[in-house]
Amino acid sequence: MAERSRAHGALGRALREFRVERGLSQERLAQNSGMDRTYVGGIERGERNPAYANVRRLAAALEIRASKLLARAEEIEESESQ
Amino acid sequence: MAERSRAHGALGRALREFRVERGLSQERLAQNSGMDRTYVGGIERGERNPAYANVRRLAAALEIRASKLLARAEEIEESESQ
Repeated sequence: MAERSRAHGALGRALREFRVERGLSQERLAQNSGMDRTYVGGIERGERNPAYANVRRLAAALEIRASKLLARAEEIEESESQ
Repeated sequence: MAERSRAHGALGRALREFRVERGLSQERLAQNSGMDRTYVGGIERGERNPAYANVRRLAAALEIRASKLLARAEEIEESESQ
Protein backbone atom coordinates (compact mmCIF):
# COMPACT_ATOMS: atom_id res chain seq x y z
CA MET A 1 0.00 0.00 0.00
CA ALA A 2 1.33 3.47 -0.78
CA GLU A 3 1.75 6.40 1.58
CA ARG A 4 -1.56 8.27 1.51
CA SER A 5 -0.02 11.74 1.64
CA ARG A 6 3.05 13.55 2.95
CA ALA A 7 1.02 14.38 6.06
CA HIS A 8 0.18 10.72 6.69
CA GLY A 9 3.81 9.74 6.11
CA ALA A 10 4.96 12.33 8.63
CA LEU A 11 2.35 11.17 11.17
CA GLY A 12 3.68 7.64 10.80
CA ARG A 13 7.27 8.75 11.27
CA ALA A 14 6.34 10.73 14.39
CA LEU A 15 4.51 7.72 15.78
CA ARG A 16 7.48 5.43 15.14
CA GLU A 17 9.86 7.96 16.69
CA PHE A 18 7.89 8.12 19.97
CA ARG A 19 7.42 4.33 19.99
CA VAL A 20 11.14 3.65 19.55
CA GLU A 21 12.02 6.31 22.16
CA ARG A 22 9.88 4.37 24.61
CA GLY A 23 11.48 1.07 23.66
CA LEU A 24 8.18 -0.46 22.55
CA SER A 25 7.74 -2.95 19.73
CA GLN A 26 4.88 -2.42 17.25
CA GLU A 27 3.31 -5.51 18.80
CA ARG A 28 3.42 -4.06 22.30
CA LEU A 29 2.17 -0.63 21.20
CA ALA A 30 -0.69 -2.35 19.39
CA GLN A 31 -1.55 -4.39 22.50
CA ASN A 32 -1.39 -1.33 24.75
CA SER A 33 -3.67 0.65 22.47
CA GLY A 34 -6.10 -2.19 21.77
CA MET A 35 -5.33 -2.22 18.07
CA ASP A 36 -4.10 -4.75 15.54
CA ARG A 37 -0.32 -4.83 14.95
CA THR A 38 -0.71 -4.75 11.18
CA TYR A 39 -2.93 -1.67 11.49
CA VAL A 40 -0.35 0.09 13.67
CA GLY A 41 2.31 -0.86 11.11
CA GLY A 42 0.15 0.62 8.35
CA ILE A 43 -0.20 3.88 10.27
CA GLU A 44 3.59 4.02 10.76
CA ARG A 45 4.06 3.58 7.01
CA GLY A 46 1.60 6.40 6.31
CA GLU A 47 -0.79 4.01 4.57
CA ARG A 48 -3.69 4.44 6.99
CA ASN A 49 -5.87 7.39 7.86
CA PRO A 50 -6.58 6.82 11.55
CA ALA A 51 -9.65 8.31 13.16
CA TYR A 52 -9.44 10.67 16.12
CA ALA A 53 -10.24 7.89 18.61
CA ASN A 54 -7.34 5.78 17.35
CA VAL A 55 -4.89 8.69 17.32
CA ARG A 56 -5.84 9.25 20.97
CA ARG A 57 -5.44 5.56 21.84
CA LEU A 58 -1.96 5.48 20.33
CA ALA A 59 -0.94 8.70 22.07
CA ALA A 60 -2.28 7.41 25.40
CA ALA A 61 -0.28 4.18 25.00
CA LEU A 62 2.82 6.34 24.40
CA GLU A 63 1.92 8.50 27.42
CA ILE A 64 1.75 11.69 25.37
CA ARG A 65 -1.09 13.92 24.27
CA ALA A 66 -2.50 13.51 20.79
CA SER A 67 -1.66 17.18 20.16
CA LYS A 68 2.01 16.41 20.87
CA LEU A 69 2.03 13.54 18.38
CA LEU A 70 0.50 15.81 15.72
CA ALA A 71 2.87 18.68 16.52
CA ARG A 72 5.83 16.35 15.96
CA ALA A 73 4.27 15.10 12.71
CA GLU A 74 3.88 18.71 11.53
CA GLU A 75 7.52 19.42 12.38
CA ILE A 76 8.65 16.36 10.42
CA GLU A 77 6.43 17.31 7.47
CA GLU A 78 7.87 20.82 7.40
CA SER A 79 11.46 19.60 7.62
CA GLU A 80 10.79 17.20 4.74
CA SER A 81 9.31 19.90 2.51
CA GLN A 82 12.39 22.11 2.66
CA MET B 1 -26.93 10.88 17.64
CA ALA B 2 -25.15 10.97 20.99
CA GLU B 3 -21.75 12.41 21.79
CA ARG B 4 -19.26 9.59 21.19
CA SER B 5 -17.02 10.39 24.15
CA ARG B 6 -15.94 13.34 26.27
CA ALA B 7 -12.90 13.63 23.99
CA HIS B 8 -15.07 13.87 20.87
CA GLY B 9 -17.34 16.40 22.58
CA ALA B 10 -14.34 18.54 23.48
CA LEU B 11 -12.96 18.30 19.92
CA GLY B 12 -16.31 19.53 18.63
CA ARG B 13 -16.37 22.43 21.07
CA ALA B 14 -12.82 23.42 20.12
CA LEU B 15 -13.75 23.30 16.43
CA ARG B 16 -16.83 25.45 16.99
CA GLU B 17 -14.81 27.93 19.05
CA PHE B 18 -12.23 28.47 16.28
CA ARG B 19 -14.96 28.61 13.61
CA VAL B 20 -16.95 31.27 15.49
CA GLU B 21 -13.74 33.25 16.24
CA ARG B 22 -13.18 33.42 12.49
CA GLY B 23 -16.77 34.47 11.82
CA LEU B 24 -17.46 31.43 9.63
CA SER B 25 -20.80 29.64 9.35
CA GLN B 26 -20.83 25.82 9.45
CA GLU B 27 -21.82 26.00 5.79
CA ARG B 28 -18.80 28.10 4.87
CA LEU B 29 -16.38 26.01 6.93
CA ALA B 30 -17.76 22.90 5.24
CA GLN B 31 -17.32 24.45 1.79
CA ASN B 32 -13.79 25.61 2.58
CA SER B 33 -12.78 22.16 3.81
CA GLY B 34 -14.57 20.22 1.06
CA MET B 35 -16.89 18.48 3.48
CA ASP B 36 -20.62 18.16 3.94
CA ARG B 37 -22.24 20.69 6.29
CA THR B 38 -24.13 18.01 8.19
CA TYR B 39 -20.89 16.10 8.73
CA VAL B 40 -19.17 19.24 10.09
CA GLY B 41 -22.19 19.78 12.36
CA GLY B 42 -21.87 16.19 13.59
CA ILE B 43 -18.20 16.73 14.42
CA GLU B 44 -19.07 19.91 16.31
CA ARG B 45 -21.63 17.97 18.34
CA GLY B 46 -19.06 15.28 19.14
CA GLU B 47 -21.07 12.66 17.26
CA ARG B 48 -18.46 11.91 14.60
CA ASN B 49 -14.99 10.40 14.78
CA PRO B 50 -13.16 12.27 12.02
CA ALA B 51 -10.11 10.72 10.39
CA TYR B 52 -6.74 12.46 10.37
CA ALA B 53 -7.22 13.77 6.83
CA ASN B 54 -10.49 15.47 7.79
CA VAL B 55 -9.08 16.95 11.00
CA ARG B 56 -6.32 18.44 8.85
CA ARG B 57 -8.80 19.78 6.28
CA LEU B 58 -10.83 21.50 8.98
CA ALA B 59 -7.72 22.96 10.63
CA ALA B 60 -6.44 24.21 7.26
CA ALA B 61 -9.78 25.90 6.55
CA LEU B 62 -9.47 27.61 9.95
CA GLU B 63 -5.85 28.54 9.17
CA ILE B 64 -4.51 26.71 12.19
CA ARG B 65 -2.47 23.55 12.63
CA ALA B 66 -4.25 20.34 13.48
CA SER B 67 -2.07 20.11 16.61
CA LYS B 68 -3.48 23.47 17.77
CA LEU B 69 -7.05 22.28 17.32
CA LEU B 70 -6.29 19.15 19.35
CA ALA B 71 -4.42 21.09 22.04
CA ARG B 72 -7.49 23.32 22.51
CA ALA B 73 -9.73 20.23 22.63
CA GLU B 74 -7.50 18.71 25.33
CA GLU B 75 -7.68 21.95 27.34
CA ILE B 76 -11.48 21.97 27.09
CA GLU B 77 -11.66 18.30 28.07
CA GLU B 78 -9.47 18.89 31.12
CA SER B 79 -11.45 21.95 32.19
CA GLU B 80 -14.69 19.94 31.90
CA SER B 81 -13.38 17.04 33.99
CA GLN B 82 -12.57 19.23 37.00
